[in-house]
Amino acid sequence: MYDLLKGLRVVEGSAFVAAPTCGLYLAQMGAEVIRFDNIGGGPDFRRWPLSEAGDSLYWEGLNKAKKSVALDLGSAEGRELAQRLATAPGEDGGLFVTNFPADGFLSYEKLRALRDDLICVRVMGWADGSQGMDYTINSALGLPLMTGPADDARPVNHVLAAWDLLTGAYCAFTLVAALMARMKGRGGREIRAPLSDIGAATMANLGFTAETLLSGQQRARMGNDVFGAFGRDFTTKDGVKLMLLAITPKQWSKALEVLGLGAEVATVEGELGVSFASDEGLRFTHRARLYPLFERAFAGRTAAELTPAFDAGGVTWGAYQTLEAALDDARLFKDNPLFQNIRHPSGLSYAAPGAMATIPQDIRGDVRPAPKLGQHTDEVLSDVLGLSSGEIARLHDAKVVAGPEGR
Amino acid sequence: MYDLLKGLRVVEGSAFVAAPTCGLYLAQMGAEVIRFDNIGGGPDFRRWPLSEAGDSLYWEGLNKAKKSVALDLGSAEGRELAQRLATAPGEDGGLFVTNFPADGFLSYEKLRALRDDLICVRVMGWADGSQGMDYTINSALGLPLMTGPADDARPVNHVLAAWDLLTGAYCAFTLVAALMARMKGRGGREIRAPLSDIGAATMANLGFTAETLLSGQQRARMGNDVFGAFGRDFTTKDGVKLMLLAITPKQWSKALEVLGLGAEVATVEGELGVSFASDEGLRFTHRARLYPLFERAFAGRTAAELTPAFDAGGVTWGAYQTLEAALDDARLFKDNPLFQNIRHPSGLSYAAPGAMATIPQDIRGDVRPAPKLGQHTDEVLSDVLGLSSGEIARLHDAKVVAGPEGR
Repeated sequence: MYDLLKGLRVVEGSAFVAAPTCGLYLAQMGAEVIRFDNIGGGPDFRRWPLSEAGDSLYWEGLNKAKKSVALDLGSAEGRELAQRLATAPGEDGGLFVTNFPADGFLSYEKLRALRDDLICVRVMGWADGSQGMDYTINSALGLPLMTGPADDARPVNHVLAAWDLLTGAYCAFTLVAALMARMKGRGGREIRAPLSDIGAATMANLGFTAETLLSGQQRARMGNDVFGAFGRDFTTKDGVKLMLLAITPKQWSKALEVLGLGAEVATVEGELGVSFASDEGLRFTHRARLYPLFERAFAGRTAAELTPAFDAGGVTWGAYQTLEAALDDARLFKDNPLFQNIRHPSGLSYAAPGAMATIPQDIRGDVRPAPKLGQHTDEVLSDVLGLSSGEIARLHDAKVVAGPEGR
Repeated sequence: MYDLLKGLRVVEGSAFVAAPTCGLYLAQMGAEVIRFDNIGGGPDFRRWPLSEAGDSLYWEGLNKAKKSVALDLGSAEGRELAQRLATAPGEDGGLFVTNFPADGFLSYEKLRALRDDLICVRVMGWADGSQGMDYTINSALGLPLMTGPADDARPVNHVLAAWDLLTGAYCAFTLVAALMARMKGRGGREIRAPLSDIGAATMANLGFTAETLLSGQQRARMGNDVFGAFGRDFTTKDGVKLMLLAITPKQWSKALEVLGLGAEVATVEGELGVSFASDEGLRFTHRARLYPLFERAFAGRTAAELTPAFDAGGVTWGAYQTLEAALDDARLFKDNPLFQNIRHPSGLSYAAPGAMATIPQDIRGDVRPAPKLGQHTDEVLSDVLGLSSGEIARLHDAKVVAGPEGR
């Protein structure tokens, strides 16, 4: 937790990964983020992985440091409460993050009628409003056909929901950017972030589309070969797979040095009349000549021999480790100051991270757990909407709202 | 282009994907982003894909809408100019994005001595300063061993640099968040965003680490099966692979309806004593029972029969298409208003996108191309650093700076 955004109040009506990570990033930088959900939980409330008791480890990971309000979104009164929350007054409020449909009861038009300077960031599937999720957008962009071993034609989906994650972080950026404009007197606005557009723009930003426009076909599937440079997984004498990478001249020369391949590579360079040091693309073009040299060099040494030599020599490399091994890796998890052992709404205690960035001069506050569903219903209805305890009791009785006990 | 951040001046000293996308997102939301590079280009200036003439389509994709200054970063005077640019005065300046080493000539300590309220966002590999790139961080997190067909044990790297992209967008967010704090009188700060921490935190945010802590092992490799719900690629009668997804009850019921599987699935439910509609996890647990039904349903219909029925029925699905097919897809590229045909520094004209989000009430300004390397050297030295034409000429003569002709 840092407090850069202290004082901001963001309301989140969301599910799954993109919009919830947007809220998470804002919350862990100090904003008050109030998530509302249907009583009993939204469509992501039971997403796997689950604890033995059936609580979602996914939900409690994605909603850390937020407040939770539970509403009956099937009722007119519950929907009105959601609208009022999203548009509640206050200079540092009027910030709403959602993936609810653009034309539903949380449309910008409906909300703007309640608060003229509302900033609404809306995650969408396809830009035209039709359904799309990370998996189906990804399949449309060509990537699963470019991923995986060259000797296998089956499409390979990514396991990491990259489009959701990029969209979530980009939405956090656009929300704060729109707030800056509003602070300068330029009013509120809706910002729509469809996964389809984030995907299409990114494929262009990285040069994939220009490459395909020029060549007439998409990049070939090539296993773990790093496109346009030198990199791949290699296997050590004891069967460990290491990822080696050499894009810059320095990365290349250090890899050759530690592997003792300088002379052999110079011979290949002489034969071909090229210099691999000055042009990483040539290393890619001629990788079939280079790979056997590296394969032999790796096969002659154990991982225990190679990896300290790589580190000492400044080589860019990585081990393929399992996540259970990674959890014992001091740099990633075990001694990582981002992580703190906390108790979660599932009742389980385990290490969880705060803000993903580090501000050396600021104090990193405690990691805050996700709320129990409905934990802050009464507090928020009172503080943000100014409802009396009598009104709140009536809403509970009418089953329009619920607290942490589900009623 | 939108102008939410109009008036801000951001200096970028960067290479590869993460820090450049941070600058790109800021520029396409209206900030003036000035990128400095070594004369002749930094380590990413010739990254593939290349045009036939050898210009990087990657570089010109990632640096759209920025200004370019070329400096001899090997000389003391060039390094001093870089420091002065990063810390140039102005209320809306003092914003620096970089992936230069934390302890080098662009360290926060050195820069802060020149501007006390500097905001510096620094992309790093590993948090301890050691080398790491997207590929090597990814291999350390376990994902390549979870990716790809279950019948193949080889690690599968992702083709999309997901960690770089997430880091870039998150950095854009933290930069504006830090600026907001500075506007409230809280001074400047350094924000460090190591790929290793972004990766570790994300694996925790999504529940991967809690799952592994509980089970003692990482998620099994399972091809394209969607973990904890129903989803996979299926093959139509004419051999087309479609991704089908059903997480919510509605997605599930619509898929059954269009595929005509209601009765068969009800039989399985009866046998097992479960309800698949209300618990997506059960669809995953019993997927071996469900897959044959879906495989037969797909195998009995062509893609041309199925896909309009899916759309009409509100099913969540996606085709596995190649990127060349995607370029003809109206929704992604062909008629996407994000894209505009512009001339790039390579001399080529092709469609490129502006800001990834859409603001319906604002006018989407023209997409702006990347600069030529050094195109704005003189303009920036004059406008930002206040150098006279005589001083600028001297710097050219001394080869400390260069314009677009490389001198």
